Amino acid sequence: MTDHPPHIAKRMSEIQPFHVMDLLACARQLEAEGRSIIHLEIGEPDFPTADPIIKAGQQALANKRTQYTPATGLPELRQAIADYYQQKFAVEIPVSRIVITPGASGALHLALGVLINPDDQVLMADPGYPCNRHFVRLLEGRAQSIPVDSSTGYQLNAELIKNNWTDRTIAALIASPSNPTGTLVARSAMQEILALLENTQGRLIVDEIYQGLVYGVDDYTALEFTEQAFVINSFSKYFGMTGWRLGWLVVPEEYMDAVDRLAQNIFLAAPTISQYAALAALTDETEIILRQRRDEFKKRRDYLLTALRALGFEIPVSPQGAFYIYANCSKFTDDSFKFVYQLLEQAGVAVTPGIDFGSYKAAQHVRFAYTRPIEVLAEGVKRIAEFVNNC
Amino acid sequence: MTDHPPHIAKRMSEIQPFHVMDLLACARQLEAEGRSIIHLEIGEPDFPTADPIIKAGQQALANKRTQYTPATGLPELRQAIADYYQQKFAVEIPVSRIVITPGASGALHLALGVLINPDDQVLMADPGYPCNRHFVRLLEGRAQSIPVDSSTGYQLNAELIKNNWTDRTIAALIASPSNPTGTLVARSAMQEILALLENTQGRLIVDEIYQGLVYGVDDYTALEFTEQAFVINSFSKYFGMTGWRLGWLVVPEEYMDAVDRLAQNIFLAAPTISQYAALAALTDETEIILRQRRDEFKKRRDYLLTALRALGFEIPVSPQGAFYIYANCSKFTDDSFKFVYQLLEQAGVAVTPGIDFGSYKAAQHVRFAYTRPIEVLAEGVKRIAEFVNNC
Repeated sequence: MTDHPPHIAKRMSEIQPFHVMDLLACARQLEAEGRSIIHLEIGEPDFPTADPIIKAGQQALANKRTQYTPATGLPELRQAIADYYQQKFAVEIPVSRIVITPGASGALHLALGVLINPDDQVLMADPGYPCNRHFVRLLEGRAQSIPVDSSTGYQLNAELIKNNWTDRTIAALIASPSNPTGTLVARSAMQEILALLENTQGRLIVDEIYQGLVYGVDDYTALEFTEQAFVINSFSKYFGMTGWRLGWLVVPEEYMDAVDRLAQNIFLAAPTISQYAALAALTDETEIILRQRRDEFKKRRDYLLTALRALGFEIPVSPQGAFYIYANCSKFTDDSFKFVYQLLEQAGVAVTPGIDFGSYKAAQHVRFAYTRPIEVLAEGVKRIAEFVNNC
Repeated sequence: MTDHPPHIAKRMSEIQPFHVMDLLACARQLEAEGRSIIHLEIGEPDFPTADPIIKAGQQALANKRTQYTPATGLPELRQAIADYYQQKFAVEIPVSRIVITPGASGALHLALGVLINPDDQVLMADPGYPCNRHFVRLLEGRAQSIPVDSSTGYQLNAELIKNNWTDRTIAALIASPSNPTGTLVARSAMQEILALLENTQGRLIVDEIYQGLVYGVDDYTALEFTEQAFVINSFSKYFGMTGWRLGWLVVPEEYMDAVDRLAQNIFLAAPTISQYAALAALTDETEIILRQRRDEFKKRRDYLLTALRALGFEIPVSPQGAFYIYANCSKFTDDSFKFVYQLLEQAGVAVTPGIDFGSYKAAQHVRFAYTRPIEVLAEGVKRIAEFVNNC
């Protein structure tokens, strides 16, 4: 047929791959050649899904729960999430505002889908999770990536939002804990942001997908302070259900009709077995396991943070959540992309280059994930030490 | 907070709900009050997922297959789908062109996402599956809904595509078998369409999600004739895996990079357990069960088609696939929306109004789904007979 280059949507020139995928392919190739590779690039916990959840999934299959649920999700699971907010944060969320989604990706898609018109702008932090800006672009909006640094804990705050708000800005997106920085937005800062947006008529979208994975600080939800924010959550991280593809969205009441319509059309529904299994994720039995895992993540963070600082990586804000450390590597390189490939090829350690999280000082940063046991992290640190001593 | 009406994306005024959802809610309410309702509105087979697939899902859970797969899907499943095309249609599809998606919805999303720029137009049949036009709208494209009638088997053909093609048209979407009409595009008609698009540089998107559910005719795939079309398929219908949310997309080679990037960003990956389970959907053992089910659907179609015609519904083109009959009800009403509510309330039979599939002669049509056993269909027919005799 035609030799002409294909017609391709313009958005695709701005929707980038995760560069770490190429690095991972390279790592797999080295492993296939017999090399040992320490994986500090993978944003997925090493723990398999907890047994009570697995068992609930098997039971759902035995009960032949294989048909569609309503687009907004299994009513029992929506209720269980409402109960979870009540028990954990003492906040009352009407079940009618909780929508079960295929992963947090689905939740973000719904929130942005009902908000964004073409060329509308959404404020977000750089560095930040790249899918956020790509979703905005998919819907023909414009991500306003605001450079953030250690002075604000790598987070947007009310001042940054105010100073960067334009006539076309319709929302701000906050992730707490953040990927890649592991930093949190303090309660008081969240309240200031909400107060500001109340005046500007802007919407806040809060990514709470790492909720529960916080270390040494109190956890909270933006829902304690507002009924007007879109709040995204996930069963992937704290609940350890990545491959099940299940998340949820808490929706301001007046958007529920639109969100329901959009969900009907773009997903039909989240996976049924995952929804039944997730009922077991919210039980006391599972909570015991999940807390143990959180404690293990805390130990890993403590270990890796200390070790990386000792090696000369600059980490001015101690990460308090998620399972990432965002480190300034400018003592060793002015090109973190080149650095990560050298580290992989010469030392057998895979980490994620800063470019995967934005452009602001990306070449001076890398992200370490502590999704492997401490003994693996220790081997990684040993190899990195040898490598940087030769830099 | 604000009393102002919320900022809401303009697209949401054009993304409609399935009207049948309200009807279903009404039916559930009547059932809660003790009424017996015959459900001929539900587009989901009554069979649970076949046992070999259920068992494979349970085994995947026992093996703790709970982490992400690659964005393009489990390599073994992509290979199994390539083998399936080889065995069933004697067509060689490189594994690299097969992408596993969260439902056929995910596949359509990817195809349109890499093709559509704002205001680009996509040709599709009216009546047709409403999500198609809503996906186009979500991405800021414009669906060109072309009225089709019995003269073309309720399908677009080369002439309709040629006559309606504009400077802004970039693709045509064909569903064969079609929801709601159950009609097929003949091989020769498909080849004519492909020949036409080769000249216009337009793309064809072919929805083959009811593939396998055809009665008394030979099945085929558009992939027999072209490497340039996007072909959407699903494990939901023939393979009976609705709630598992799994489909696939066959992609023209030169779009694979873009499709992979988009999948990474909007889904991360399809549900892992569903992907492992689907491996068992493509085995000979399961195929025996699926063929029996197809034969049962054929019997139901034969029964219901004859019965509805005898009652006075006009069905000028015999449906040859899927599990739907699209019937002209103008002998009984000039308002099919009112008709379906009367039929529900007075006779206890739920069917889908034409408006859920477009606007062309929607008020003169309803859709019957034969997703219930013949004895249930027979009771429905009895009730409809009594009702229309009083019309």
